[in-house]
Amino acid sequence: MSDRSAQAQWERYTQRPLLALAVAFAIAYAVPIVDNPASPVLAVVCTATEWAVWAAFAVDYLIRLALSPRRREFVRTHWIDLGAVVLPLLQPLRLLRMVSTLLLVGRRARMASQIRLTTYVAGAVVGLLMFGSLAVLSVERDSPNGNIRTLGDAVWWSFTTMTTVGYGDHAPTTGLGRMIAVGLMLSGIALLGVVTANIAAWFIARFEKDDVEERRQTEAIASLAEEVRLLRTEVARLVDEREQQRS
Amino acid sequence: MSDRSAQAQWERYTQRPLLALAVAFAIAYAVPIVDNPASPVLAVVCTATEWAVWAAFAVDYLIRLALSPRRREFVRTHWIDLGAVVLPLLQPLRLLRMVSTLLLVGRRARMASQIRLTTYVAGAVVGLLMFGSLAVLSVERDSPNGNIRTLGDAVWWSFTTMTTVGYGDHAPTTGLGRMIAVGLMLSGIALLGVVTANIAAWFIARFEKDDVEERRQTEAIASLAEEVRLLRTEVARLVDEREQQRS
Amino acid sequence: MSDRSAQAQWERYTQRPLLALAVAFAIAYAVPIVDNPASPVLAVVCTATEWAVWAAFAVDYLIRLALSPRRREFVRTHWIDLGAVVLPLLQPLRLLRMVSTLLLVGRRARMASQIRLTTYVAGAVVGLLMFGSLAVLSVERDSPNGNIRTLGDAVWWSFTTMTTVGYGDHAPTTGLGRMIAVGLMLSGIALLGVVTANIAAWFIARFEKDDVEERRQTEAIASLAEEVRLLRTEVARLVDEREQQRS
Amino acid sequence: MSDRSAQAQWERYTQRPLLALAVAFAIAYAVPIVDNPASPVLAVVCTATEWAVWAAFAVDYLIRLALSPRRREFVRTHWIDLGAVVLPLLQPLRLLRMVSTLLLVGRRARMASQIRLTTYVAGAVVGLLMFGSLAVLSVERDSPNGNIRTLGDAVWWSFTTMTTVGYGDHAPTTGLGRMIAVGLMLSGIALLGVVTANIAAWFIARFEKDDVEERRQTEAIASLAEEVRLLRTEVARLVDEREQQRS
Repeated sequence: MSDRSAQAQWERYTQRPLLALAVAFAIAYAVPIVDNPASPVLAVVCTATEWAVWAAFAVDYLIRLALSPRRREFVRTHWIDLGAVVLPLLQPLRLLRMVSTLLLVGRRARMASQIRLTTYVAGAVVGLLMFGSLAVLSVERDSPNGNIRTLGDAVWWSFTTMTTVGYGDHAPTTGLGRMIAVGLMLSGIALLGVVTANIAAWFIARFEKDDVEERRQTEAIASLAEEVRLLRTEVARLVDEREQQRS
Repeated sequence: MSDRSAQAQWERYTQRPLLALAVAFAIAYAVPIVDNPASPVLAVVCTATEWAVWAAFAVDYLIRLALSPRRREFVRTHWIDLGAVVLPLLQPLRLLRMVSTLLLVGRRARMASQIRLTTYVAGAVVGLLMFGSLAVLSVERDSPNGNIRTLGDAVWWSFTTMTTVGYGDHAPTTGLGRMIAVGLMLSGIALLGVVTANIAAWFIARFEKDDVEERRQTEAIASLAEEVRLLRTEVARLVDEREQQRS
Repeated sequence: MSDRSAQAQWERYTQRPLLALAVAFAIAYAVPIVDNPASPVLAVVCTATEWAVWAAFAVDYLIRLALSPRRREFVRTHWIDLGAVVLPLLQPLRLLRMVSTLLLVGRRARMASQIRLTTYVAGAVVGLLMFGSLAVLSVERDSPNGNIRTLGDAVWWSFTTMTTVGYGDHAPTTGLGRMIAVGLMLSGIALLGVVTANIAAWFIARFEKDDVEERRQTEAIASLAEEVRLLRTEVARLVDEREQQRS
Repeated sequence: MSDRSAQAQWERYTQRPLLALAVAFAIAYAVPIVDNPASPVLAVVCTATEWAVWAAFAVDYLIRLALSPRRREFVRTHWIDLGAVVLPLLQPLRLLRMVSTLLLVGRRARMASQIRLTTYVAGAVVGLLMFGSLAVLSVERDSPNGNIRTLGDAVWWSFTTMTTVGYGDHAPTTGLGRMIAVGLMLSGIALLGVVTANIAAWFIARFEKDDVEERRQTEAIASLAEEVRLLRTEVARLVDEREQQRS
């Protein structure tokens, strides 16, 4: 078995365990925000879980690098993975760790060919909504002028933002909260684009069937083939006659 | 007549009566919400009508199942119909009954091939707007902080939500009201997608006519056919000369 | 000259005068709303102008009907024109008269083949924005809870509605004002669809150029033509040799 | 070297310096708005920088005109450049100078074939967001009812406007501020269109691969080519036999 297939095999076998770890991370991320103020024991368990999941993804990156036949190329083409692993170390922000994990899970999920684009987009949207709600809640809850103080308000705000409805009954007031909001808005625009494009592609595929020009071309090629067949028959007759002449 | 066509015939004949029943259901659903507080007699009549329509759809499902040649396959491919019939029984919520009826009518309407996609989408949008307005009104009217208290406000709010305008002069404040709102927002995004895709498909169909590459291909095929025709003339002359030689 | 071309000629010659009349109508519609309370003389002049323009469109409809070779078909295919002419008579609402004129101008403009789709859409958007602003201003100005009281606010509100931004700093509060708003929102969605579709069609037209399959087809046809050309040369040599043999 | 390539060479060489000047202009435009009230010295330096950049673009226009082989045609096809150069002279508004520079940089960037459409659109969006934030801040800060008073609020407002979310927690109240807002909204709609179109074009390009009609055409051409090849073989045999006959 070659090194290349060893890497692919590793990626196939670790797909599901890493997805399960990401779910564990999400729970460990969500619990201290929702259950606020959290009991000290729970806070320690959650922080430990987050770091353990981060470590698992770091180890996964190193093993994939080790199994890769061309390590220099692997680092170059997987610089997002490297950044997602290294960044939470440099600046141990809770926020960045969540984004890193989302990125790493997303990149591993895209590798799996059995996961369709629609599933991938739906998963990304759900992940972004959950992350956006929790992150904004943790940031805005302590702001003096903030108006997003419960999980319900945060989830509701995420939906109105991502669908670009924007009632304005709840809106972030801090700089960090607004950065998260901008991320959700841009994701919302991309979501709208994917939905529209999907429907449009399906519509156009149905329209194409009636394409007049192409059908005329097919007919032209068919009549041309008929012409050539007739020609061959005549040449064959010429050849036959010559054979008869000879004999 | 085979069993299969018996099922199709039943579906064709019951199409219109079931649509009429759905309209009756919508009226029975709307009246107690709009005419609030309702007189006890009216409330009883409306509840009875709702259950009668539900029963009619349940009977329709059973008859279609009985007429189906492959019952196991029918249950598998019509699991949404089954769920829409069974769910209001398990949890007799007014809300779920409305969604179930919308689903059942929608699935029966889609079967009718004479109903075009545009009509189907327009019908779904009108149905969703009506349902969204009534459901939010019934939920938000009794909320202490609610600001959707009349039918006019509810319809207006539904439009601003579904078009993703979202002024925010009226917005749901309860959890149930916000869930309905999220449903309307997602429908609004899908609506936007369908409208855009429809226009785009029409535009592209017009653009395609001017496709340069394809026209060049058609020309290439035409000149090739001319070439082959000339060739056949020459071969025919060869054959003629041989005939003359022979005679 | 046939009756049919007489109708076409009339439509070509009256295109510009009717557009000028529509501008006059728009001014006569706008002046009493903007200059409020209006002087009695001005109000009379404006009302007279509005009715004169309506009469001109009514006469235009009758002349086109008279010039049409198949009058029954003309009435059937131009029922929107007939409705737009008759409706303001039945219910002499200022609002309906404006919508009627917009419809009539739009239908006449679409007939002119020299006007491109983009120009048509841009014109419709500007017309709708102007009409929406003026109509909402006239309706909301006298509402006790209204917050659209100046022309500036009305135009600003129209833009935020049509682009589906919807800040909510200004929003209609009356039933009639909200109906106009719904019209603007739906136009906004259509506008978004046209813009997106236009850009998408242009993108796809550029992508198509690089279509691999088609290029391979073009190459296949070219090599096939080369093959046939070689074949013709050989057959021509056959014919030449025979000529030499004969001589 | 011809005059035409002299112009192209000038445009290639001045591409980067002009982009650097545009960045200098943006900084000179931003500093007095952000650092308000500005020190007199800084204000003078910034104004001087703005005029120097304007002069550089004016000189660039004149040189390109001088190098152009057909000057009349150059003026006709580059009337936007001319307007962008002349307008700030006639009406020395700070606002117009910014728009002019954006236009000039945009037109020069579009000429460079190495800059892709996506980069161009991303650049335009960032430029518009920056310009919109600064312009609205400078206009709304001094308005008595204004609610956009810090750079953070202005940037946040620009994002909510361009993505058509429109919370309404911040909105311009002056006429000039609202004009800038309308520009941002329309850019937002165009942005949404470009994003959707990009995704749709990519989707459709993937769908096209499975186009049944085209694959059937390719097969038809292949079988036709096979037919012609067989024909050529037979004709070649005819020719060979004749050669043998002759010898």
